[in-house]
Amino acid sequence: MEPVERVTGHFQDELQQLKTRLLEMGGLAEEEVRLAVQGLVERDEALVERVLKGDEPLNAMHIEIDSRAFTLLALHQPMAADLRAIVAAVKINTDLERVGDLAVNIAEAARRYTMLPPVKKLIDIPRMAAIAQLMLRDALDAFVRQDTALAQHVLNEDDKLDSLKTQIFRELLTYMLQDPATIEPSLDLILVSRHLERIGDHATNIAEDVIFMVSARDVRHGAS
Amino acid sequence: MEPVERVTGHFQDELQQLKTRLLEMGGLAEEEVRLAVQGLVERDEALVERVLKGDEPLNAMHIEIDSRAFTLLALHQPMAADLRAIVAAVKINTDLERVGDLAVNIAEAARRYTMLPPVKKLIDIPRMAAIAQLMLRDALDAFVRQDTALAQHVLNEDDKLDSLKTQIFRELLTYMLQDPATIEPSLDLILVSRHLERIGDHATNIAEDVIFMVSARDVRHGAS
Repeated sequence: MEPVERVTGHFQDELQQLKTRLLEMGGLAEEEVRLAVQGLVERDEALVERVLKGDEPLNAMHIEIDSRAFTLLALHQPMAADLRAIVAAVKINTDLERVGDLAVNIAEAARRYTMLPPVKKLIDIPRMAAIAQLMLRDALDAFVRQDTALAQHVLNEDDKLDSLKTQIFRELLTYMLQDPATIEPSLDLILVSRHLERIGDHATNIAEDVIFMVSARDVRHGAS
Repeated sequence: MEPVERVTGHFQDELQQLKTRLLEMGGLAEEEVRLAVQGLVERDEALVERVLKGDEPLNAMHIEIDSRAFTLLALHQPMAADLRAIVAAVKINTDLERVGDLAVNIAEAARRYTMLPPVKKLIDIPRMAAIAQLMLRDALDAFVRQDTALAQHVLNEDDKLDSLKTQIFRELLTYMLQDPATIEPSLDLILVSRHLERIGDHATNIAEDVIFMVSARDVRHGAS
């Protein structure tokens, strides 16, 4: 982690660094999600434990990025588009930190799941994970490139996660009703599907912030 | 809703108004949670439907408060404590909007739950709800009064929610293993307990923001 105090130089350079760090944090959060789901699917306890213990770098980046944003606001009193970009960065930072927490939640469920016999071959959960990770990456790319079309694409992807979540729930409910031995592990899979849905929600939040940042238009809650 | 554009007058008055609106939004979010849980416990379909349709005022306040914060940042370029208060307000605003979403999630679970025979008399869920609501109220009071001791108290309360959630899970798992007819409604109660836990998490986030705002000290992630 670079020392936060060394914030001199030109405002645009500092803003660019803030965006770069946010992108790096996004990459790290996405990687934790990927590893947690891989640990679940492959029943790899070592991988699961690594995710459970691995949230320190993300937490440190969260504090660092917040500090950079504050310093930029305090020292440069930015206006209009720059101000919106920094406030967006503060919000996106919070979303990414929560994504890291959700990766840990997935790993917690994975740890319990691997202690019991598996319910089924996991197909839809890795599919949900792939969609959620891509949404996250696209939302952050949209932020850095100020690309509202890409941000809008992220918003459109959310329905896919929702229908997969519903499908997973229905299938697992059938298993649970047929065989009580599947109840406990199925509960963990249902929780994982909800955690992945929430990662998609965070990507959606980021995409909405990007649209607001670029166009100063509020797309949240159907406002226009 | 007052027109947001009318932001003239003294900075401190405007900042006070921002805090007042945030407090009103918190009261509204807390009320939605209370009604959703009451609808679940009393199996009151009309109440549940009211919560499901009632998130418009919260969404409008979310946009209004964000807009007020932006205007304050852009017009007055506040420094130090005032800057921290406004950035805290932006974050708290996001937390409160999510609490409103969680009230809707609870109402969705309640709607499904009331269509099936009840699993048990609900004791621990209203208890969790009462704790989460009080945490939220205390966190917002701590924000307005800049009361770090109260904020710290909120952080300490979170363990209670966690142990109630675990207790609810274990009890419902026993029911599900004994009688498959309880599986589907039990799943909704488990989800509700998780939604309430997350409301507590949002109160915790707010309390941490208050401590940072007042003392410029970051208590998140065990930093000091």
